[in-house]
Amino acid sequence: MDDRIDAIQRRTAGDPRVIGLAGGLPSEAQFPKGELARSFVRVLEHAGAPALQYGWAEGFESLRELIASRLRARGAPASAGDVIVTSGAQQAIAIALEVICRPGDRVGVAPETYPAALDLLRERRLVPVVSATGVRAHYAMPAVGNPSGVGLDAGARAALLEGGAPVIEDDAYADLRFDGTAPRPLLAEAPRQVFHVGTLSKTLCPGLRIGWLVAPARFRKRALRIKQGSDLHASSLAQAIVADLLGATPAGSGLDFEARLVHLRRFYRARAAALGRALRAHLPEWHFSEPEGGFAIWALADRSPLAPLAPLAPLAPLAPLAVPGCGGVDEKTFLEAAADEGVMVDPGSMFRANRSVAPMAIRLCFSAAPPTKFEEAVRRLARAWRRVRRARLVA
Amino acid sequence: MDDRIDAIQRRTAGDPRVIGLAGGLPSEAQFPKGELARSFVRVLEHAGAPALQYGWAEGFESLRELIASRLRARGAPASAGDVIVTSGAQQAIAIALEVICRPGDRVGVAPETYPAALDLLRERRLVPVVSATGVRAHYAMPAVGNPSGVGLDAGARAALLEGGAPVIEDDAYADLRFDGTAPRPLLAEAPRQVFHVGTLSKTLCPGLRIGWLVAPARFRKRALRIKQGSDLHASSLAQAIVADLLGATPAGSGLDFEARLVHLRRFYRARAAALGRALRAHLPEWHFSEPEGGFAIWALADRSPLAPLAPLAPLAPLAPLAVPGCGGVDEKTFLEAAADEGVMVDPGSMFRANRSVAPMAIRLCFSAAPPTKFEEAVRRLARAWRRVRRARLVA
Repeated sequence: MDDRIDAIQRRTAGDPRVIGLAGGLPSEAQFPKGELARSFVRVLEHAGAPALQYGWAEGFESLRELIASRLRARGAPASAGDVIVTSGAQQAIAIALEVICRPGDRVGVAPETYPAALDLLRERRLVPVVSATGVRAHYAMPAVGNPSGVGLDAGARAALLEGGAPVIEDDAYADLRFDGTAPRPLLAEAPRQVFHVGTLSKTLCPGLRIGWLVAPARFRKRALRIKQGSDLHASSLAQAIVADLLGATPAGSGLDFEARLVHLRRFYRARAAALGRALRAHLPEWHFSEPEGGFAIWALADRSPLAPLAPLAPLAPLAPLAVPGCGGVDEKTFLEAAADEGVMVDPGSMFRANRSVAPMAIRLCFSAAPPTKFEEAVRRLARAWRRVRRARLVA
Repeated sequence: MDDRIDAIQRRTAGDPRVIGLAGGLPSEAQFPKGELARSFVRVLEHAGAPALQYGWAEGFESLRELIASRLRARGAPASAGDVIVTSGAQQAIAIALEVICRPGDRVGVAPETYPAALDLLRERRLVPVVSATGVRAHYAMPAVGNPSGVGLDAGARAALLEGGAPVIEDDAYADLRFDGTAPRPLLAEAPRQVFHVGTLSKTLCPGLRIGWLVAPARFRKRALRIKQGSDLHASSLAQAIVADLLGATPAGSGLDFEARLVHLRRFYRARAAALGRALRAHLPEWHFSEPEGGFAIWALADRSPLAPLAPLAPLAPLAPLAVPGCGGVDEKTFLEAAADEGVMVDPGSMFRANRSVAPMAIRLCFSAAPPTKFEEAVRRLARAWRRVRRARLVA
């Protein structure tokens, strides 16, 4: 991430006067603290204390079976042996890229996509491109895009698989579609082509760092070696707690995970609606699509029609970093003004392969901040926006 | 690791009839379960529940300060800003290698060293060599070697730094020297050259996966980007628990970590002595050096003088994998016989850059199995040893 934006975000994250709509954090209020504490105490009593000990690189058998069974329920023919438990979804993406790509390779991404995946691609000297063809692999979020908040239609899903290149399917928000249906994963369509990535960070809590990778069978051994080399194995403590919490062990408390998901979908859908109302009321000149799921709204500042959200649009024009995004307003200047007004959002350039600030856009997360503050947050944002536009017009 | 040996070890790890001296696991009896549970409950009560939420890539400030203060006490000028909390020491090694090396580079290692570091080197297409010169970097365990159980003398320490190549200092067992002195880290001698790697896996518990990396200042930004790309950040839950447990937070329970270390050193020293006695009594034809610390004894089968344990011996001869190690006995055959007799150890080839089985050697861990079983374990090993030697002589 840009150093200056990073500095603004770090400064405001610790400031209680700032309403935080940045960062994509799940709601703290939804963390099942009591159940986690009870699971913790229970797993400490297991013979051999596997929760505190070293474990195998692939992860706990009971947890892998749990993950596989949820994939089977969505149509993918997965078994426990196909699953590697990872230290969050990020590690699963990193392993998949290491298996598939070499420095210099082009990787197809959506026009706007998950910033930590883009940063990882760049760190590995891979080239993220908004292109369906001529790529070594695709990175995509078919169920619910981040930051778009919308899923891919049948045509876009088919297009991802068409060329035969491996697809890293980031399924992070699949369980948080507001319509209640985790769609059939791409993994189900093409298990020999898809590296399926999942996580409990959005639906349980991120602090556990539990994700998973289901790699095509012929890459599985290599993926496991890379996992072992990366950090030996995912936290035993987190694995044991999750396996207990989700009822995968005989002693499981029976946190009803499916009921929890129903609740979370309702919870985040209501927040999405509240933030949408605030935007329409106080920033009517901005545009956004209603999210189908996830944690955020992607909003565009200009009056031009919404950019297509499908990930396979033709290669976006390479805008130099310093080009003003909209009406002559610089993205960082806007973010700084917003921070001064007491609100923080994620800048659009973070989500773009070419870091373009045009068209000017932001991601607003409705997931973590209390909805009672949404109106005030958007009012502050609107003040900042008008202030920097006015300054720009005067200058 | 070799697939067949991996299969034997996995099979025997789950078999209660087998006495396990493999794997380098800390003693389960020493896990501070009660204190961990109390810390867990406490950290859940913190405002914002940072233990369950996303965090910054570098890790919790309070934990980094705690790590830095322990390094300062040993003579290294470290501050919290110098420390990256990692998902175990393994990740710290992986990050350091990614910063320093390119595929094809030679990395200097001890004649016998930590197998997961060797596996990682090979996975990254780096070449581990037992050489002090002509290498891109060194990987070393100056305080207490694994599997040797002994530290480097002043000459060997100086030799590591001499050529100016970066040194990855794996300090995993420094706090478990039986003489009670965590030596001055190499980091203190050459902070611009040394990538210092530490962990709480040996002194607290491995299941938390908490380690750290102190990289030379000019590599720190890159190291942090790699850390973030790898898995965003170390488990918030584990970080919060450790920070609380070790008293880094105001609410800290005051587990007296230094007192714990005094106790652990005594505990493991007694076990080392007990295993040594059993070896001398029941396998007198094997040779070993008394360990100065750590979890294991490195024992050689042949009657030739002990190989020098300093890591900077000249390049070891490349023995083909299939060459019998000693007296015509094949390492895997011996391990299988040992498993049949009901004891498991780590084969010497695991610890060698060239995977050589000669001279035949094994690592015996005294850390996890109860010492009441040491005599019986070595008796079983001796039976297996005599059986395979006899079979070989007859054949």
